[in-house]
Amino acid sequence: MTTRTGRVTCDLTISADGYSAGLNQSEQRPFGDDGGDGWGDKLHAWMFETAEENRAELEQLAGAGAFIMGRNMFGPVRGEWDRPWNGWWGDNPPYHTSVFVLTHHAREPQPMDGDTTFYFVTDGIESALAQAQAAAGDGDVAIQGGATTVNQYLAAGLIDELRLHIVPLTLGAGTRLFEGVPPLNLEQVNSRAATSVTHVTYRVH
Amino acid sequence: MTTRTGRVTCDLTISADGYSAGLNQSEQRPFGDDGGDGWGDKLHAWMFETAEENRAELEQLAGAGAFIMGRNMFGPVRGEWDRPWNGWWGDNPPYHTSVFVLTHHAREPQPMDGDTTFYFVTDGIESALAQAQAAAGDGDVAIQGGATTVNQYLAAGLIDELRLHIVPLTLGAGTRLFEGVPPLNLEQVNSRAATSVTHVTYRVH
Ligand SMILES: NC(=O)c1ccc[n+]([C@@H]2O[C@H](COP(=O)([O-])OP(=O)(O)OC[C@H]3O[C@@H](n4cnc5c(N)ncnc54)[C@H](OP(=O)(O)O)[C@@H]3O)[C@@H](O)[C@H]2O)c1
Ligand SMILES: NC(=O)c1ccc[n+]([C@@H]2O[C@H](COP(=O)([O-])OP(=O)(O)OC[C@H]3O[C@@H](n4cnc5c(N)ncnc54)[C@H](OP(=O)(O)O)[C@@H]3O)[C@@H](O)[C@H]2O)c1
Repeated sequence: MTTRTGRVTCDLTISADGYSAGLNQSEQRPFGDDGGDGWGDKLHAWMFETAEENRAELEQLAGAGAFIMGRNMFGPVRGEWDRPWNGWWGDNPPYHTSVFVLTHHAREPQPMDGDTTFYFVTDGIESALAQAQAAAGDGDVAIQGGATTVNQYLAAGLIDELRLHIVPLTLGAGTRLFEGVPPLNLEQVNSRAATSVTHVTYRVH
Repeated sequence: MTTRTGRVTCDLTISADGYSAGLNQSEQRPFGDDGGDGWGDKLHAWMFETAEENRAELEQLAGAGAFIMGRNMFGPVRGEWDRPWNGWWGDNPPYHTSVFVLTHHAREPQPMDGDTTFYFVTDGIESALAQAQAAAGDGDVAIQGGATTVNQYLAAGLIDELRLHIVPLTLGAGTRLFEGVPPLNLEQVNSRAATSVTHVTYRVH
């Protein structure tokens, strides 16, 4: 048996009260209810409006050898795949490698431009991780979200490094990071303040 | 009518999942259940073990002109005041000014050494704030905790500056900051990383 060199990482942008999405997600509002206040935009302003000062964190985000995400992050289709949907990111998604989408609804792999392929995994988080690790080789596997997916990996003790991007607003309801996850012993390995976000990296023990 | 110069501040130490205390608080375990792991100690390690590097934050903590706290923070007595209890802090508490304790159980003011007096307020958060502001003069009023008390002041829009000290562990259950508080628009005015805590200051709008 060989030891993998790649880690399992997770970057998640959360509100100060720990939410990564609001209630009632839809195609019109991928981040759910926001009290009419564009909270999805505010949540990710650090990636776009102030990208320059957050370059190091953005490069980390993109650096994994394979990605895992939940079906709700992939798109707004629920239940059967009853209409065409290939993600939010157009024909050439920013992944450029294998992306494993957790779902209860089987679907054929979906190749995209620029070397991204979406694989749909119906046999659970361990299976998705094993497939992603095989695809990543010596690279990291990044758990992309949403919180429902991240919480399962945290509860199973499968995440090595959790990188939170804490933005200055609270949401009060929605999908919350750490919900239902047993107590964790974390090690703060890095923490950096930017203008309107605080980046904190934890090693999970 | 004159405008007050003092602000209403709140410093709270929270776990990465937003808790400021565990379940089942008692005299033996003022911070509640910790899975046998001394979480109360870990929560406040930044104030004691690594006090030197957190001097600026500690000075801010002590600088208010008057303090407000919930009855559970004041001590483990619940229901009627059926036994002597003057707080966790000995004869000479570190406040050296007026401290207003929110409770449903009336009690005479309790003067202590070093100019601390505990006043017991039974007519609600606005009354406690008005009394604290009168006592503080031009100084700040600090809402000391616990989260049950802080959340009421946040929900009522009465806190100007919220200073969170986020420590690297999760608790999974207990009293949680922001629980039941409607969405807030925050402004990150300061954020600083120390070895095993991240300090984030928000202005509340
Ligand atoms: N703030 C951020 O950084 C960030 C990051 C990512 C996403 N988001 C937002 O978060 C929201 C999505 O997150 P979410 O927590 O609601 O959901 P999610 O984790 O993206 O997806 C959950 C869904 O994935 C499928 N799934 C998850 N685990 C599974 C398992 N073990 N086996 C089989 N299927 C499984 C299920 O779908 P089916 O049963 O329908 O197949 C489940 O309902 C979106 O609003 C997205 O925009 C935010
Ligand atoms: N992490 C930190 O920085 C930090 C800071 C402070 C405290 N703590 C910890 O937090 C815990 C205490 O916090 P907590 O959230 O459980 O409780 P708390 O806010 O300290 O006290 C709540 C109690 O205060 C009284 N009270 C609150 N609001 C009231 C109101 N509007 N009117 C009348 N009475 C009112 C009630 O007591 P009665 O009905 O019994 O009178 C209520 O049960 C302790 O474990 C403490 O050690 C942690």
